[in-house]
Amino acid sequence: MKNILVFGAGLSSSYLFKYLKEHAAKEKWQISICDANLELAKTKAEHAKHCKVVQCDVLNEPERNALISKHQLVISLLPPALHVVIAKSCIQFQRPLITASYVSPEMKSLDADAKRAGIILLNEIGLDPGIDHLSAMKLIDEIHAKGGQINSFKSFCGGLVAPEFDNNPWSYKFTWNPMNVVLAGQATATHLANGKIKYIPPHQIFKQTQLVKVPGYGNFEAYANRDSISYIEPYGLKKATTVLRGTLRRTDFCNNWQQLIELGLTDASKQLTGLEKETYRSFITSFIPIKNQETLEQALANYLGIKKSSKAFKNIEWLGLLKNEKIGLKDATPAAVLLKCLLKKWQLKKNELDMVVMKHEIDYTLQKKQIHVGSSLVIKGEDQTYTAMAKTVGLPMAIAARHILNGNIKETGVHIPILPCFYEPILKELKQFGIDFIEKTQVLSGHK
Amino acid sequence: MKNILVFGAGLSSSYLFKYLKEHAAKEKWQISICDANLELAKTKAEHAKHCKVVQCDVLNEPERNALISKHQLVISLLPPALHVVIAKSCIQFQRPLITASYVSPEMKSLDADAKRAGIILLNEIGLDPGIDHLSAMKLIDEIHAKGGQINSFKSFCGGLVAPEFDNNPWSYKFTWNPMNVVLAGQATATHLANGKIKYIPPHQIFKQTQLVKVPGYGNFEAYANRDSISYIEPYGLKKATTVLRGTLRRTDFCNNWQQLIELGLTDASKQLTGLEKETYRSFITSFIPIKNQETLEQALANYLGIKKSSKAFKNIEWLGLLKNEKIGLKDATPAAVLLKCLLKKWQLKKNELDMVVMKHEIDYTLQKKQIHVGSSLVIKGEDQTYTAMAKTVGLPMAIAARHILNGNIKETGVHIPILPCFYEPILKELKQFGIDFIEKTQVLSGHK
Repeated sequence: MKNILVFGAGLSSSYLFKYLKEHAAKEKWQISICDANLELAKTKAEHAKHCKVVQCDVLNEPERNALISKHQLVISLLPPALHVVIAKSCIQFQRPLITASYVSPEMKSLDADAKRAGIILLNEIGLDPGIDHLSAMKLIDEIHAKGGQINSFKSFCGGLVAPEFDNNPWSYKFTWNPMNVVLAGQATATHLANGKIKYIPPHQIFKQTQLVKVPGYGNFEAYANRDSISYIEPYGLKKATTVLRGTLRRTDFCNNWQQLIELGLTDASKQLTGLEKETYRSFITSFIPIKNQETLEQALANYLGIKKSSKAFKNIEWLGLLKNEKIGLKDATPAAVLLKCLLKKWQLKKNELDMVVMKHEIDYTLQKKQIHVGSSLVIKGEDQTYTAMAKTVGLPMAIAARHILNGNIKETGVHIPILPCFYEPILKELKQFGIDFIEKTQVLSGHK
Repeated sequence: MKNILVFGAGLSSSYLFKYLKEHAAKEKWQISICDANLELAKTKAEHAKHCKVVQCDVLNEPERNALISKHQLVISLLPPALHVVIAKSCIQFQRPLITASYVSPEMKSLDADAKRAGIILLNEIGLDPGIDHLSAMKLIDEIHAKGGQINSFKSFCGGLVAPEFDNNPWSYKFTWNPMNVVLAGQATATHLANGKIKYIPPHQIFKQTQLVKVPGYGNFEAYANRDSISYIEPYGLKKATTVLRGTLRRTDFCNNWQQLIELGLTDASKQLTGLEKETYRSFITSFIPIKNQETLEQALANYLGIKKSSKAFKNIEWLGLLKNEKIGLKDATPAAVLLKCLLKKWQLKKNELDMVVMKHEIDYTLQKKQIHVGSSLVIKGEDQTYTAMAKTVGLPMAIAARHILNGNIKETGVHIPILPCFYEPILKELKQFGIDFIEKTQVLSGHK
């Protein structure tokens, strides 16, 4: 019997637990679910033979150590800040750890200790980061293996609403942590363009977008992720002159969102007080200088330098930001007020499904030919529990857990899944769940 | 004999020490100077009979307590974060404390303890904040005393280069902590306009400026300070519909500075690495998307939406930001790179003098008349040591110290200098140093 401990039973966990439970009998697993929200943990363990709920204050070291020492593998879905304390206990008791989060400097510093303990701390094994690494590295290694030289690498991913339910003028609904959507792009982004490191400051990120086409699903646009540069070395792209990782939205979203940034509505650093009497309209009035005799609508259009008849203006109106409706908050940041407004308009309804879209675009030279590969993935949710997001985040973690426990993955230390030992078995198994990329190769130019 | 302890011997201290030394014999003072930079402290104590250098690690509580207990009054010129630990020792040993810094929430929370100890913790008693409070409150109290009702209150202050040495196209040179100039306006600003609280997000602060005229010195422009709202109550301006505190620059400065913000050059949150080979030109190239065949100059102008022939563009060029000159930094934030460039261009030369400008603009109603008062102050530096900035920051603190030690100021608790017991004696004495406001009153309209 092998005991698996999962910290966190929230958002992305449905498919992870589904996989673990379905494999429990055959693999001889016993699954422990630990969440601060006991009721939530119980719903995940319900009617499952090989599943139980355990309680633990993760920040209490003796409690945490006692729990971790009783299991053979740990998966953490907790907020990233908590991964490091869990990782330290995992090292102490020689238990491998899996997370879907970016490797923090603190996590990275545990590499030598994890190697000495003979265990893996496997991070960035969800969707993005996760499936992007697996699928990109498979492509990159294949191109390098046949002697190609990669000149340009771009990788995009987005969580969106499925086209059948794309019925609002923003073409967007929340399918993931809504506050993270409001706070996206608030740090300078870096990428490589024409051989030069480029920096995009926060107020420019949603202005510098690019068109991304996904066969069968039309046009999207992408804004730059925080850090594309740090992937140049692990991806083996030192000769490339363009390296960009970005987030996908439907076209026009970024320009519309930029208007909210210009207004200052995404600011989470300033706590505003005394909002109890404010309506969304009076709140917006606070962000615009208004001349005498000017309506708010006219002042807003002038301030943003857009027409009242423009789509961007109509989309602000559609959100309800100009309505005389009470906000219903007392003290809040502008970002929290915006979030409250967005939650009324961008929630998926009960029958509505989400969609995950990923696209890699690679240009390489092979035998003097210029070749372009586009590789895309589109996954739709099954229902509100088994969403595309939960599926694509949870399954890679669950599959990785199985291969670590079975001894198929033998690496030790701090890892992200860029080696064949990760992407080969995991991509293969993801295919069985319909998570499969469509690849299109075009020869752009060349001499024979 | 009364012992005065001064923490910090840097930038603004020259006039403070001049005053303390000149009054030491008559007032029977012994002055102790404590600075982490021992040599700097020694230069301030040189040739002074009543002055000595003391050593103390401010963060070492026993050391700090031992030192503070031996003095009758403490003045702190240290970074604001250190004031609170000093204040706690001052409370323990019942020693009054003077600082020129904004009252932090932590400082504010010491009010009851300071009252129980029977001492004053007097803050915001430099130039801005400081002389602005003193002079504004005198005006406000006078207007209220004759039955006037204030509708609009605006107060502006700036540290600039004296007009005789205003010989660069930015009309600006550093006369104060240069990094603070680079980082100005990076938090949402709040003020009151037409009876409505207004928020200005960071990337808009230098766009929403207003013209300020100072008789004899021409036109300036002002951008909003971080927090004007919190002064409505202490200033007694609850009936006013406009309340704004702002920082003065020469006209056009703010528009030019906004271009550097748009580029992302004022960002201090992103540490860039590997800059050793970069020139200012290649650095700037990193912040702009450049199309094929486009020169950097053309791409920059297009990106900012300005003409290459515009003053804003020429001012960027003038700074040397487009030159093929090595930056000479390895790892640095964009703000640090910008600062290094600015320090070469905006330093006051040895013979050049600074200037401090303050202006209050008040509109009030008295007996159905609309009256406007403009009250302005212009102070020029004497040399590079006795600058206008050092004079206007240091003298109010020094004068306050004398009145506290003499028992003329009897208040206890946490204070800012808005009461007559502060502004009457201090403004009176500042006049003797030429720090005197010119007041102009205009009746704008009214019926008899």
